[in-house]
Amino acid sequence: MSGRKAFDRVRVVLKDTTHPGNIGSTARAMKTMGIHQLYLVSPRTLIDASSHALAAGATDILSSAVFCNTLPEALAECTQVFAFSARRRDLSPTFITARVAAETAATNITADGEVALLFGGERSGLTNEDMGRAGYAVEIPTSSEYFSLNLSQAVQIAVYELRQALTKAPRAPQRDMPSQMQMEMFFTHCQEVLDNVNMPKRGDGGLLLARLRRLITRAEPDAAETRMLRGVLRAVQRRIMRADK
Amino acid sequence: MSGRKAFDRVRVVLKDTTHPGNIGSTARAMKTMGIHQLYLVSPRTLIDASSHALAAGATDILSSAVFCNTLPEALAECTQVFAFSARRRDLSPTFITARVAAETAATNITADGEVALLFGGERSGLTNEDMGRAGYAVEIPTSSEYFSLNLSQAVQIAVYELRQALTKAPRAPQRDMPSQMQMEMFFTHCQEVLDNVNMPKRGDGGLLLARLRRLITRAEPDAAETRMLRGVLRAVQRRIMRADK
Repeated sequence: MSGRKAFDRVRVVLKDTTHPGNIGSTARAMKTMGIHQLYLVSPRTLIDASSHALAAGATDILSSAVFCNTLPEALAECTQVFAFSARRRDLSPTFITARVAAETAATNITADGEVALLFGGERSGLTNEDMGRAGYAVEIPTSSEYFSLNLSQAVQIAVYELRQALTKAPRAPQRDMPSQMQMEMFFTHCQEVLDNVNMPKRGDGGLLLARLRRLITRAEPDAAETRMLRGVLRAVQRRIMRADK
Repeated sequence: MSGRKAFDRVRVVLKDTTHPGNIGSTARAMKTMGIHQLYLVSPRTLIDASSHALAAGATDILSSAVFCNTLPEALAECTQVFAFSARRRDLSPTFITARVAAETAATNITADGEVALLFGGERSGLTNEDMGRAGYAVEIPTSSEYFSLNLSQAVQIAVYELRQALTKAPRAPQRDMPSQMQMEMFFTHCQEVLDNVNMPKRGDGGLLLARLRRLITRAEPDAAETRMLRGVLRAVQRRIMRADK
């Protein structure tokens, strides 16, 4: 065990946020559910007086918010990333509901994982590239006629569900999970091998690496399995190099 | 059955609301979950421009909001009333959680009942007299250190839970899955390539193919993904064969 409490191993990551008020409301929503780590990736606004007004008693979360230029920085230590989106799209990982996401995250957190709940900007949400960095795409079930949840309302539901799941989660068997950075290195290695064997970059189902990424991420390989996969990739490369000589 | 749809037999009742913005955010929160009837009991403010701004696409709910002078007027047709409160008190009915409240309400609604979700003002919440008019006192579980949910955030959680309870049937995404035989052919193909690249059959973690099988099976690849993986295996074999010539 890392010693840090479960709720301290959850971060809310807001990317491209445009309204300072939403940052404040998000801080308040987080604090009501006992979650304190806020990451702001390339915000389009500063934290201002309206943020503080809407944060009410949660201004400590604003003061300790971490600013990042890129999404990978904000996700580096995370073992599981949940990307919230109202729009389903072809290349994203399979969508799960906020409740299933919370249960999945709670299991990971109680096994010492570090979890990110990721939300895009008010205007256009997350890009396909952002979604590709997440193991799970999450939708909050809404009316099909009007599904425009305010950003901080979406965060409120997400952290509420997570709190519900964490306060009843059974302890899962402990697995040693790779960090997001280790997974990125693995996928870079994958692309190298695909290039080595002259696989076309895209086919009927879209970008090959994105499809592989979705599949592997769904399997949640642990650290030993990730090492095994990299061992196979290295063996393929060695075999080709030797033959080429 | 009354003929009216289940979601139309739910009303949100706000009493003594002070912030016009919260009325707008509440309308938006309701509409995302398909609930349209808003009752305002002795509001301390008018619906103004800030209400409309925060309602976003839900201004129709503001336009059709029903104003009442007293709480009994707003609750007259209701068969069940759920009073939301952050403060437990002696004189109130037994507290249940928002999730249990939603399940209770859903049962009543599907049996043709008319349900009210009642929320007090931002400053002092509901009075003991108000609470006494409700069959159920509801609390939204929060952190014990900070439990100051914004009014519209509390409504958002309440209507979200109600929607979840009313639409319980889980729908699994339809995927075209490979047959067991196709999976066996895939794993045979895997072993062939592992042999081609001279991977040792077993390592620290046991039989390599068994570990790969466990990992891939956990990901539940669909038919297209299985074809993609076989495409990669074939590309590796072709590349080696060509180099060996």
